[in-house]
Amino acid sequence: MEIKVMNKVLAANDAWAQENRALLKKSGVLMVNLIGSPGAGKTALLEMTLEHLKGKLVAGVIEGDIATTRDAERIQKKGVPVCQINTGTACHLDANLVNGAINQISGEVKFDIIFVENIGNLVCPAEFDIGEHAKIAVLSVTEGDDKIEKYPLLFSQARALVITKMALHGFTNFDLARSQVEFRKLNPSAPIFKVDSLKGEGVEPWIQFLVSMRRDAAGQII
Amino acid sequence: MEIKVMNKVLAANDAWAQENRALLKKSGVLMVNLIGSPGAGKTALLEMTLEHLKGKLVAGVIEGDIATTRDAERIQKKGVPVCQINTGTACHLDANLVNGAINQISGEVKFDIIFVENIGNLVCPAEFDIGEHAKIAVLSVTEGDDKIEKYPLLFSQARALVITKMALHGFTNFDLARSQVEFRKLNPSAPIFKVDSLKGEGVEPWIQFLVSMRRDAAGQII
Repeated sequence: MEIKVMNKVLAANDAWAQENRALLKKSGVLMVNLIGSPGAGKTALLEMTLEHLKGKLVAGVIEGDIATTRDAERIQKKGVPVCQINTGTACHLDANLVNGAINQISGEVKFDIIFVENIGNLVCPAEFDIGEHAKIAVLSVTEGDDKIEKYPLLFSQARALVITKMALHGFTNFDLARSQVEFRKLNPSAPIFKVDSLKGEGVEPWIQFLVSMRRDAAGQII
Repeated sequence: MEIKVMNKVLAANDAWAQENRALLKKSGVLMVNLIGSPGAGKTALLEMTLEHLKGKLVAGVIEGDIATTRDAERIQKKGVPVCQINTGTACHLDANLVNGAINQISGEVKFDIIFVENIGNLVCPAEFDIGEHAKIAVLSVTEGDDKIEKYPLLFSQARALVITKMALHGFTNFDLARSQVEFRKLNPSAPIFKVDSLKGEGVEPWIQFLVSMRRDAAGQII
């Protein structure tokens, strides 16, 4: 029975995801879904990214959290429109919740790109299509290089892998070469970016990737 | 409908959890459920703990993972019986799965303590009672001190909080005083241990806590 209901839940979610894709197409917006563990550095990556996108792309943010509005407050300080979703007990965002947030955030601003920061979790967020154009896997060096193989769904679906907290790399046993090998087994082509968000290191290739994804999307996806 | 089914799932889980408690009582075993993010250092904590428990408590381990047997292999090297549960897509262990693992691991060895390493996830593992005597929250300094407030259920239920990767503390902005304040808002009495598993720092109070929890349990819980 549980499996049947799960299939129904996923089918209902997929219908909302289609709805979101249509909505984004209509307004010409690229939507990017950031997924990683709690503490992988998703919010810090967003803060750095929003700084560097100024004058390049008009961005908005949808923040997913179990509880609190802490991340949304951090984003607001960057002067970027943000909508908070608190899921209460749910360990992932679903397309219906994101639909409400897209409608809420899309007021007078004409966005080029909307970032969704999913709930900190490597499992279920990868299972729920929210209508995004790209899932981005965020993995910190302090988590260990075995996480790619241990949580394969996200890494196989990702349009890019961002390895964060690179300034701490020298203090960990994270093997960059091994992580690349593991990632390539699951994902033959997605680019890998190595950044330190607090120090602003490695940011340029990542920003270029976002800008060119937006440009490609304008011709193709959107 | 989704909520109704979720309630049924939780009710079925609770029945299995009761079954597990009866099973553990019969064999006089304390069961401890380690919960934390992917990469919080649960396996490293276990490796260090198992080393230090030698001659004090007879331990077994149940390893929960989405995919791979990597953690179980690490535990096996410590010469400790281990049973691997691969959940496939499920983001938490449930009491039924753990029941099978208890039965499988409890052969000729008479355990004092069974550690369960749950799926790396701060959300759902806290929602599913697996019949354990104590949930232990594992939080690394590299994840950030805001995680306690952002994932409140686990931290409110925990019988202890273990803060890991202390050797990296000086390189992060993790505020130990703030984390203690946040934890105390949710949990008035559970002890807080600060450890570095790779360097073996802070291990003694944690080991003493486990040994005395086992002793208390022998009189009361078990």
